[in-house]
Amino acid sequence: MSTTPFGWLAEARENRRSAGLQRRLRPRSADTELLQLAGNDYLGLTRHPAVTAAAADAVHRWGAGATGSRLVTGSTDLHAELEAELAGFCGFEAALVFSSGYAANLAAVTALTGPDALIVSDAANHASLIDGCRLSRATTRVAPHADPEAVAKLLAGHDGRALVVSDSVFSVDGDAAPLTELADVCREAGAGLLLDDAHGLGVLGDGGRGAAWAAGLAGREGTVVTLTLSKSLGSQGGAVLGPAAVIDHLLNAARTFIFDTGLSPAAAAAALAAVRLLRERPDLPERARAVARGLHSGLTAAGLSAVRPDAAVVSVRAPSPQDAVAWAERCRTRGLHVGCFRPPSVPDGVSRLRLTARADVSDDTLDRAVRTIVETAPAGA
Amino acid sequence: MSTTPFGWLAEARENRRSAGLQRRLRPRSADTELLQLAGNDYLGLTRHPAVTAAAADAVHRWGAGATGSRLVTGSTDLHAELEAELAGFCGFEAALVFSSGYAANLAAVTALTGPDALIVSDAANHASLIDGCRLSRATTRVAPHADPEAVAKLLAGHDGRALVVSDSVFSVDGDAAPLTELADVCREAGAGLLLDDAHGLGVLGDGGRGAAWAAGLAGREGTVVTLTLSKSLGSQGGAVLGPAAVIDHLLNAARTFIFDTGLSPAAAAAALAAVRLLRERPDLPERARAVARGLHSGLTAAGLSAVRPDAAVVSVRAPSPQDAVAWAERCRTRGLHVGCFRPPSVPDGVSRLRLTARADVSDDTLDRAVRTIVETAPAGA
Ligand SMILES: Cc1ncc(COP(=O)(O)O)c(C=O)c1O
Ligand SMILES: Cc1ncc(COP(=O)(O)O)c(C=O)c1O
Repeated sequence: MSTTPFGWLAEARENRRSAGLQRRLRPRSADTELLQLAGNDYLGLTRHPAVTAAAADAVHRWGAGATGSRLVTGSTDLHAELEAELAGFCGFEAALVFSSGYAANLAAVTALTGPDALIVSDAANHASLIDGCRLSRATTRVAPHADPEAVAKLLAGHDGRALVVSDSVFSVDGDAAPLTELADVCREAGAGLLLDDAHGLGVLGDGGRGAAWAAGLAGREGTVVTLTLSKSLGSQGGAVLGPAAVIDHLLNAARTFIFDTGLSPAAAAAALAAVRLLRERPDLPERARAVARGLHSGLTAAGLSAVRPDAAVVSVRAPSPQDAVAWAERCRTRGLHVGCFRPPSVPDGVSRLRLTARADVSDDTLDRAVRTIVETAPAGA
Repeated sequence: MSTTPFGWLAEARENRRSAGLQRRLRPRSADTELLQLAGNDYLGLTRHPAVTAAAADAVHRWGAGATGSRLVTGSTDLHAELEAELAGFCGFEAALVFSSGYAANLAAVTALTGPDALIVSDAANHASLIDGCRLSRATTRVAPHADPEAVAKLLAGHDGRALVVSDSVFSVDGDAAPLTELADVCREAGAGLLLDDAHGLGVLGDGGRGAAWAAGLAGREGTVVTLTLSKSLGSQGGAVLGPAAVIDHLLNAARTFIFDTGLSPAAAAAALAAVRLLRERPDLPERARAVARGLHSGLTAAGLSAVRPDAAVVSVRAPSPQDAVAWAERCRTRGLHVGCFRPPSVPDGVSRLRLTARADVSDDTLDRAVRTIVETAPAGA
């Protein structure tokens, strides 16, 4: 037999195209004039001079790469300093830094469960948590979105290891998980609670200490939090926060830690500088949230269907994937970059514009953005 | 019921400790005097002035982070330039850059297979390829190490999608896969061939163009290659190289591409500068290989058991995990940093010292390293 091994890709592409789901990359230039409300740089720190100076300095001091696994040559004093700072800032005993938030989630879910464990996972969780569940070989039960009672029912009767897994702020709609209730359910059932605070860090909690801090769960024995350094902290990388015993276990058992090159020194230094900036500027998180509320109220006042934001993400429904793409394109023509989320990036199949608030956006700019989105909306939005 | 959710970790730790498998992090300082033969910076580029200058410049020009998924805000002109350069240098039609080599492998394996596909995977493959197989939900058959005939048998009779997956240079022992034979077997069976060239890029092939180039497989329709930017290129990140149709499919379907923040601009710029340096210095790969051969011949002449290196990794067997740790520790006391690989980081359960050659090591330094390793060897090694 002799066929073309990747011949089937042409049909897959044609199916995407006819469903309005074909994607392409659109690299941006360094001097674009677009107003950026599509990224996750919630505090505007990715270009902050203290952050970029720290990153550039680290490249010169440490080199461009970590050169190996964190367990071999990839751990520097910088990584250790960042781990102490993240744990201290967010109120946890210990922290472990990864090359991405995705890798941190794969690590935490797999290393804290295993084939005999039960995982209860929120239906709207991020792809990296879902992939963690798949890799873990645990029994995974998907709970309806943000439903602690359903979680309690799914945990009932199981008496081995159990882990409840949830985004703290859901990445597509920007709504918050019912953390207090989830923690109660977990305590009752003897289950661990793993929260992905990718979109809470820097936005929620005292001075941006995150959703677990805001809910009084930081540092609790049964709570583990994952972070990404790529959103509010403006860098790249991820981290897991928790009891020292959990961190020790992860560095011994998590495959995406053991078999992955350490985070680059520049990225570690940038994230460290960003956390330190956050300590000096506890006003930034509140400003990001205010901008999100402003976007939401402006858009809903004009009749658009947007979810009330619990953090800095504002999600606006579009009638179809094609409408969403065309809407985002019209915004772009008018100088505004908004996110456009279509399947498979949306849990419920509904396409959306995804807007992100930034602390460094002025009220005038905010008004202009709302006007642009409203005036370019498709019929039926 | 109310138990301690992570109480089981104490026993897991005790089991590791009594088996000699407990790990700890040992951060290095910026001005360590240790001779480094443990990292994967094969060409010594991670601190090359052209590489670090490019990274620092990119931080100032683009910011410390990519700010979002490559499909939203995370693609810059720099990413596009790096993709064109990697594809051109290695002889492939197109390339796609990821936040790590681990993520690139997860993406390539999952997006090119699926539940109805058959994967044939070498028994000594890297953890990231294995995790890709697990995530793919394909039927995975593990072939004995470096055995093309066994691969042919495992492929026989299957007539849907099939993918043969192999490291090009195996990360623990440093031996090369039988690429020509694997490619023949794949062509015969209509299967795709996915090669992880993490340890071949910059070391094998004309001027470091990699193992696929060396075997005449670069740019072939059925061949896809994954790379990491974290070894010879001295940076962080990963890439997939292949036909344009494969790259288009990956950016539409691969979860570790769609749902992960783009590689930081500094890391992208460092890797780009390293590839350009490689074009100017085609002598570096040959020097790295010569240093590896020198390590191997010196160690085996003294009676140690080392695998003949096909690239820049030299693996030396140790009698037990405890012996391996103590051996590496004695080297360290004498100023030499070597890798120490124990379960679960070794496919066969045998602990080893893992040495890596570097192009910037002089003959004198090489001799000194060999002497150190030989003089500190445990009985039975
Ligand atoms: C909720 C959530 N978790 C994890 C991640 C992954 O983090 P990273 O992009 O740093 O890999 C993201 C976004 O990318 C996210 O939105
Ligand atoms: C063979 C192989 N593939 C993939 C990887 C993963 O690459 P990265 O560390 O860039 O994620 C590594 C090493 O880390 C490796 O040795």
